[in-house]
Amino acid sequence: MTYKQRNVESKKFVTIGERIHCISPVIREAMATFNPDPILERAAQQIKAGATYLDVNIGPAESNGPELMTWAVKLLQENFNNVPLALDTANKKAIEAGIRVYNRTNGKPIVNSADAGSRISNIDLAAANDAIVIALCSADGIAKDNDERMHHCHTMLDRGMALGMEAEDLWFDPLFLVVKGMQDKQMDVLNAIKLFADEGLKSTGGLSNNSNGAPKTLRPIMDSALVAMAMMQGLTSAIVNPNDLRLMETIKSCDIFKNNELYSDSYLEI
Amino acid sequence: MTYKQRNVESKKFVTIGERIHCISPVIREAMATFNPDPILERAAQQIKAGATYLDVNIGPAESNGPELMTWAVKLLQENFNNVPLALDTANKKAIEAGIRVYNRTNGKPIVNSADAGSRISNIDLAAANDAIVIALCSADGIAKDNDERMHHCHTMLDRGMALGMEAEDLWFDPLFLVVKGMQDKQMDVLNAIKLFADEGLKSTGGLSNNSNGAPKTLRPIMDSALVAMAMMQGLTSAIVNPNDLRLMETIKSCDIFKNNELYSDSYLEI
Repeated sequence: MTYKQRNVESKKFVTIGERIHCISPVIREAMATFNPDPILERAAQQIKAGATYLDVNIGPAESNGPELMTWAVKLLQENFNNVPLALDTANKKAIEAGIRVYNRTNGKPIVNSADAGSRISNIDLAAANDAIVIALCSADGIAKDNDERMHHCHTMLDRGMALGMEAEDLWFDPLFLVVKGMQDKQMDVLNAIKLFADEGLKSTGGLSNNSNGAPKTLRPIMDSALVAMAMMQGLTSAIVNPNDLRLMETIKSCDIFKNNELYSDSYLEI
Repeated sequence: MTYKQRNVESKKFVTIGERIHCISPVIREAMATFNPDPILERAAQQIKAGATYLDVNIGPAESNGPELMTWAVKLLQENFNNVPLALDTANKKAIEAGIRVYNRTNGKPIVNSADAGSRISNIDLAAANDAIVIALCSADGIAKDNDERMHHCHTMLDRGMALGMEAEDLWFDPLFLVVKGMQDKQMDVLNAIKLFADEGLKSTGGLSNNSNGAPKTLRPIMDSALVAMAMMQGLTSAIVNPNDLRLMETIKSCDIFKNNELYSDSYLEI
């Protein structure tokens, strides 16, 4: 199981596999005991399903964050041909330690994540380390409308540019909202993606938030409908479960309609 | 099996079931012999799956078109609580005969279809009969770009308005194109839908054209990805196979994201 090198010039949608996350009891235990097997297993499953990046969420990791992230980055990149990674933790020293051992052959590291509030200094961290940053368009709570989302977007974009970043290394996240409770805000989120795209900006987000609390059988159906709508609006990436077959089939099909990938009868197998 | 009355003010996506079509050997035979059973069976299947309208395609029907369409309209509406119908034939006298016996309780009849070329007089037919018309944005061949699509759109819109039609009774069809051969034109089609929507116009089309010639297992995947992208652009209706479960699940989900229908955990069953 090796990670196939990806053409960095490709316009194909970028999937960030979300399954190495300390919220999972299996992964939490593996991280607590530095047991590689469960982490390697989930990495292999996600890469096989077509994930571009893998997210590595180690939680707050207040005591041993740098040690844990260094271990996880080396473990995954050594076993999977330098698979590119998103380093996901509130512990900045852990992100910095992970980047120090990170191999960029298949893509820059992603800092997950900054926002326009208390986490804005993660923009600085990404700039100082030539990393990509996921820039959540919120500050203290959910943006009330797209004026506010775009205000946050521009605050973070300006900060990154002032620090010498390329605009394409800020991936703006509109913050996908749960349908159960915020159904009337879904079009705002989708329209924010179009506003990013109209400015030539890249975007990403935790797409499956939309279906939180919905019956398990419904979630792949909702997620795949939403990803197609979001890709139409110009979404360039998402943090997803790549082992959701319906979702991945939909992403690959939208890449065909957008002419990001040449059609063949076997395009789903690529 | 009765057709449930639909709120005519609903913003929900309108599906036009395509399975009563003389290209099917079973249906062709039933129409040749005035045998109701195969037609009623397919109607029941489509209505059960959630079709709003049923299309009735009798082919050119040069000899007995009026008789055949009159029979089919009465058969379907009497058996399915006045299910609304799209009358689909090149034989104008057959459409006129069908409309004469048509019951409007659940929606106006749809004339399928006019174009901006040799079939433009079907706009006049719809205007004279207070019908909806599917207005294909082509003339002699596929429009080469969206300037030409919109030129055809406005030609037909102007003609209908001059004859006293409401704009909402012209449903503009961008003409969905096959991916195998016209992959690079797919975004044009999707952008045309947005141009219609930006002018407040309704739209429809034979969505599954996109996947013609693709392997059978791929077609529901491609069709459902495309319908979500098209609904994001503002598509208000499509001519579809309502017995494609994945497609119908996607349409219902997009209606949820667009807030056209209130979310409940059982929304797929509605």
